[in-house]
Amino acid sequence: MRRDGSKVATMTSFIAVDWGTSNRRAFRIEDGQVVASERDDRGAASVAAADYPAEVAGIRQRLGDLPMLLAGMVGSNIGWRSVTYVAAPAGLADVAAALDWVDDRTAIVPGLSYRDGVHADVMRGEEVQLLGAVAAGLVPAEALLCQPGTHCKWATVERGAITRFTTAMTGELFALLRTHGVLARQLGHPVEPGAAFLAGVAEGAKRDLAASLFAIRARGVLGLADDADAASFASGLLIGADTAARIESGTTVHILADPALGALYAGAIDALGGTSHAIDSQAAFVAGITRIKDLAA
Amino acid sequence: MRRDGSKVATMTSFIAVDWGTSNRRAFRIEDGQVVASERDDRGAASVAAADYPAEVAGIRQRLGDLPMLLAGMVGSNIGWRSVTYVAAPAGLADVAAALDWVDDRTAIVPGLSYRDGVHADVMRGEEVQLLGAVAAGLVPAEALLCQPGTHCKWATVERGAITRFTTAMTGELFALLRTHGVLARQLGHPVEPGAAFLAGVAEGAKRDLAASLFAIRARGVLGLADDADAASFASGLLIGADTAARIESGTTVHILADPALGALYAGAIDALGGTSHAIDSQAAFVAGITRIKDLAA
Repeated sequence: MRRDGSKVATMTSFIAVDWGTSNRRAFRIEDGQVVASERDDRGAASVAAADYPAEVAGIRQRLGDLPMLLAGMVGSNIGWRSVTYVAAPAGLADVAAALDWVDDRTAIVPGLSYRDGVHADVMRGEEVQLLGAVAAGLVPAEALLCQPGTHCKWATVERGAITRFTTAMTGELFALLRTHGVLARQLGHPVEPGAAFLAGVAEGAKRDLAASLFAIRARGVLGLADDADAASFASGLLIGADTAARIESGTTVHILADPALGALYAGAIDALGGTSHAIDSQAAFVAGITRIKDLAA
Repeated sequence: MRRDGSKVATMTSFIAVDWGTSNRRAFRIEDGQVVASERDDRGAASVAAADYPAEVAGIRQRLGDLPMLLAGMVGSNIGWRSVTYVAAPAGLADVAAALDWVDDRTAIVPGLSYRDGVHADVMRGEEVQLLGAVAAGLVPAEALLCQPGTHCKWATVERGAITRFTTAMTGELFALLRTHGVLARQLGHPVEPGAAFLAGVAEGAKRDLAASLFAIRARGVLGLADDADAASFASGLLIGADTAARIESGTTVHILADPALGALYAGAIDALGGTSHAIDSQAAFVAGITRIKDLAA
C-alpha cells in the first residue's frame, strides 16, 4: 500500500541494475517484463562510493520511484560497498536470502564464492544471469554454462543451483598481451573466427600457454605467419586453452555472451568436439533478478 | 702475422660479447680463459644501430685491439643488424659456418630456429651458452637444458647438437601480471622459494594458467591467502606450468641461470619429480664462443 492508501499496480514492479565495472544497464521490470531501460558507461570504475545515492536517485527519476536491486561490481570494493559472497552450491533462494539492504527498498545482490582445496573462486554479477538462465528454462536444470569476457566464468548447474565454477582470466590475458610486451605490435588486427583462430584453438588445446604464445613471435620473425592473423591466432590460443581445460568431447555448453565473443567460444567448443547453445543473456538477467525480487518479497 | 711481421701471442686471443637486450658482457679471451671483462647496461635496447661501430671501437680500446664475436640481440632487428637463424638440429660448427661478418675481424653469431608443424621457435644468444655447456663437458652430450628468464629456453641436446627447443614466455607473463591488470596490486612482494611458491607449482602443474591466475585474486578477496605470499604463489604457478609441460618424473634438467632464478626452477623440477643440476653459465658461454672462434678460424 502506498502512503495515500492506493494499491500499487503490481507487487513485482521494480528497477534492476546490472552494474558492472565499465557499464551499467538499468531495467524497469513489471511482472517479469522489461518496460523501460537505459544503458550507459557509469560503471563502478567511474562512480565514487559517495556518489551512489545520487546515482540511484537519478535512475529512479528516469525509470520510476520503485524498489531497486543492484547486481555486479556495485557490491565490490570498487563499488558502493563490499557485500558478501554466498558459498556455492547456491541457488537463487540463497542469493535472495543474502541481499544486502542499503535502505528498506534498495538492496545489493551478493556474489558467489567457491572453494576446492587450494583453488578458490569468486563471481559478482554473473550469478544473476547464470541462475536466471536456469530459472527461465533457457538451459536445463543440469548444465554447463559459460559467460565469456575479461574474466570468463564457467559454471556447473545442478538441480537449479551453481554447484561449482571456474573463472579464467582469458580476456584479461589477451588484453595485456595486446597492449604490453613483446607480442603487442603483432596483435593489433581484429580477431576473426576463421582458420587462424582455429589453428590457435588447436595449439591452445596443448595447454602450454607460455610456450604457444612465444610461438606467435617466432612465426612472425621467421615469416611463417602473417601478422594480420596473429591476433586471431592468439585469441584462439587463449580461448582454446580455456575451453580445453573445461570440456571434453561431447560436452554441451550454454553460452551467455554478445554475438561476436559468443561466436569465438562456440567455434572453439565445436573444434574441441563439444556442442554449444547461445543463450539470451538479457532475458537470463531479467528472469534471475525478478526471481530474486519475488523470493525476497 | 701482424703487419709488422711479429707473431701474435696466440691465435685464439679475441673479444667475445654477450650482447643482450638490457645488458652486455664483454670478455677478452686468451686460450679459452677470460683474462679481462666488463659488464654494463649498454644492451641492444639502448644502442642505436648507427652507434655500433663506435661501441665496438670503445670495447676494443678497453679490452684490446682484437677480433670480436658478438652474440645475442645485437644480431636482431633491435640491434646492429638482423642476422640469420640456423635451423635446428644445429651444433657449434653450424653456428660457426653461419657467422655474419661485419668486417674481416668482427662477426655476429647467428640465432637458431626450430619448427615442428604449426609450432615454431627462435633463440638468439642462448645457443652459445647451451652448446658451450656441452662443448665444455659441463653437461652430457644427450641432455635437457633450461635457461630461465624473460623468455625461458628449454633445449634438447643430442650428440652435441640442439635438436629441438621450446621458448616459454614465463618471465614476461610474470612481469606483465605484476605491472598491469587485476593482480598487479597483489604481486608486489618479493618471490621466495618456500611453501607458497611450491603451492603455486602444484597448482601450475594442472596447466590451466588463466584459471589458476584468477584464483590468486579469489584467494585474496576471500582472505584465504596472505597477499604477501601472492607473488611467490604466482611465480610458482607460472614456473610450475612451464616445467610440467617440459619434464616428467625422473627427467634430469641442466639449468643455466643466476642463483636466485635457478633455485626457483630447481625447486619446481624437484617438486615435479625431476632432478636438476646448476651449470656455470659464464663458463658455458666462454667455452661456446671460444669453440665457435676456433671453428671459424
